Amino acid sequence: MNIAILFGGSSFEHEISIVSAITMKKVLKKSTLTYIFVSPDREFYLIDTDKINSKLFSSGEYKKGKQLTLKQGGFFVDSMFGSKAVAFDGLLNLIHGRDGEDGKIASMMEFFNIPFISPRMEASALSYNKLYTKFLAESLGVKTVTYEYLSKNDERKITMDYPVIIKPVRLGSSIGVSIVKEASELDYALDVAFEFDTDVIVEPFIEGVKEYNQAGCYTNEWELSIVEEPHKEEFLDFEKKYMDFSRDSQVLAADIDEAMKTKIQESFKKIYNPLFLGSIIRCDFFVVDGEVLLNEINPIPGSMANYLFPDFEGMVERLFRNLPKEQNILIDYQYIHSIQSAKGKA
Amino acid sequence: MNIAILFGGSSFEHEISIVSAITMKKVLKKSTLTYIFVSPDREFYLIDTDKINSKLFSSGEYKKGKQLTLKQGGFFVDSMFGSKAVAFDGLLNLIHGRDGEDGKIASMMEFFNIPFISPRMEASALSYNKLYTKFLAESLGVKTVTYEYLSKNDERKITMDYPVIIKPVRLGSSIGVSIVKEASELDYALDVAFEFDTDVIVEPFIEGVKEYNQAGCYTNEWELSIVEEPHKEEFLDFEKKYMDFSRDSQVLAADIDEAMKTKIQESFKKIYNPLFLGSIIRCDFFVVDGEVLLNEINPIPGSMANYLFPDFEGMVERLFRNLPKEQNILIDYQYIHSIQSAKGKA
Repeated sequence: MNIAILFGGSSFEHEISIVSAITMKKVLKKSTLTYIFVSPDREFYLIDTDKINSKLFSSGEYKKGKQLTLKQGGFFVDSMFGSKAVAFDGLLNLIHGRDGEDGKIASMMEFFNIPFISPRMEASALSYNKLYTKFLAESLGVKTVTYEYLSKNDERKITMDYPVIIKPVRLGSSIGVSIVKEASELDYALDVAFEFDTDVIVEPFIEGVKEYNQAGCYTNEWELSIVEEPHKEEFLDFEKKYMDFSRDSQVLAADIDEAMKTKIQESFKKIYNPLFLGSIIRCDFFVVDGEVLLNEINPIPGSMANYLFPDFEGMVERLFRNLPKEQNILIDYQYIHSIQSAKGKA
Repeated sequence: MNIAILFGGSSFEHEISIVSAITMKKVLKKSTLTYIFVSPDREFYLIDTDKINSKLFSSGEYKKGKQLTLKQGGFFVDSMFGSKAVAFDGLLNLIHGRDGEDGKIASMMEFFNIPFISPRMEASALSYNKLYTKFLAESLGVKTVTYEYLSKNDERKITMDYPVIIKPVRLGSSIGVSIVKEASELDYALDVAFEFDTDVIVEPFIEGVKEYNQAGCYTNEWELSIVEEPHKEEFLDFEKKYMDFSRDSQVLAADIDEAMKTKIQESFKKIYNPLFLGSIIRCDFFVVDGEVLLNEINPIPGSMANYLFPDFEGMVERLFRNLPKEQNILIDYQYIHSIQSAKGKA
């Protein structure tokens, strides 16, 4: 099939989206790929699949390419001879962070009636914000790490014991995240986090906590990845995560027993269904005293977590064949008609 | 100023959006209005302000008007002679229900950099869904009516006492809402609600409960409306609500004491700030045993609740001058540059 890869965006993770997008060439080998780039100023460009490389973007050379216009049913190349749709069967939203994960792209694809793989709007709004993710998990009976919440103008006071981890509520890829070992370091860590976001959550930093990642989707059946135990140093900084986004070879499954694997997978399913239908997501869990806690939802994981799946390309195709449908709304103007006739009588 | 009124949309409330939009002519008298219609199939049309009336839409005559394309910075009329932006200073999102209230329009206006009055994406996603509204209110310390939650495939069992009120989670204007007086009526009410939505909430129906509406916004200061006690029959059905959406004359303030008014206004402010900055919303509260409970958030209230404000037009202008700004994200490709040079060395 012909898959459009939408990437870039006005996002702190713009550059890792480029890396994720290029990685797709290595893992979607049987498909025809159509690359659509969202520039930092949010214009759409058609990028030649044969020529795509990171320098094309960092050099600004992409601007010489064809600019596209989003209209009902697709992306169009406008020229003197009219407007022509770019051909593809479905679109994979690969924009990490703002625009891609916050619901903007999902909104636009739904509005303009383009079949797409991505969390839908509600799923995006809830998973893009780590505070709302807590609400969601709680409502679904999935436990999370305890937390406190601070807004930019709040008093900078926390009640939990150190060490803690400070996270901007709306960012991924560890941007703006700090581990704070004692009270004297809190102020600086908050300064850093508030540079990126107006709100942060504070969680206990659990030294050596067991972390497991589970990715997956629902096509016409559950397609769950292996459970991975990510190798980590204290935590991945941005450059290491960046390299991580270009992963394309399969990793080994974590060495856990069946009971734990089942617990992790059941938690994943509770989060995913039905809110995340139409998307491939990765959930990162902590295991503390045998209990599975949701740490984060990655609504558009780096390189789509392809390296966790035995048949990533087949799964993408199956998902495209099983996308959720928007409810059909019939507008027949019957109320306007009836009010008009009521007015006529009065 | 020149205000674009965006209305219509692929929504069960398409027709009442038309009524709301036409009402704006009567209440935004000093402004120049530019009407942009979103047709049921989600095309944009420029509508002549002098000729706007409900028949233009029910007859389909609007299709003869100019079609618009959404691009960076605005809506454009494309012609043989090039592409020309429709001139306006700011846009008022008046699409009720899907598209307008669910975050799609907010997403698009933000993406395409058009100044607009409307709840932003997160605010939309949380207030469009009555379940998420509960989460939100709870997290802000605003009490709500107790509830139960049912999805389409759940067992049709509730534990609270009758009478109850059944509401689809994602719709406004009382669409799909039923009061259920005894268990035997539950099934039918759920059938009705599930025609409109995949999920419903069930709340106790409190006979004769005191209801108060508070609308407002934050410009460079709080601008709160009078508190209204809506006149109601059992509850407004769709046609009565419809007529309600064309209200344009001021109503009297509810007869409540200062202490209660303050309680209602404090609850409104907790909900509004900072999530709803940039929007004019109406919150509907119940008062039960002296306690203020949030019933609903109307993120895009009928005719913008203009009839509750002493100076609606002035407030709209002040709000346009005080819209929240999107965070500026600098993309300098420093990581791609550094990875390229690292690769060069390797």
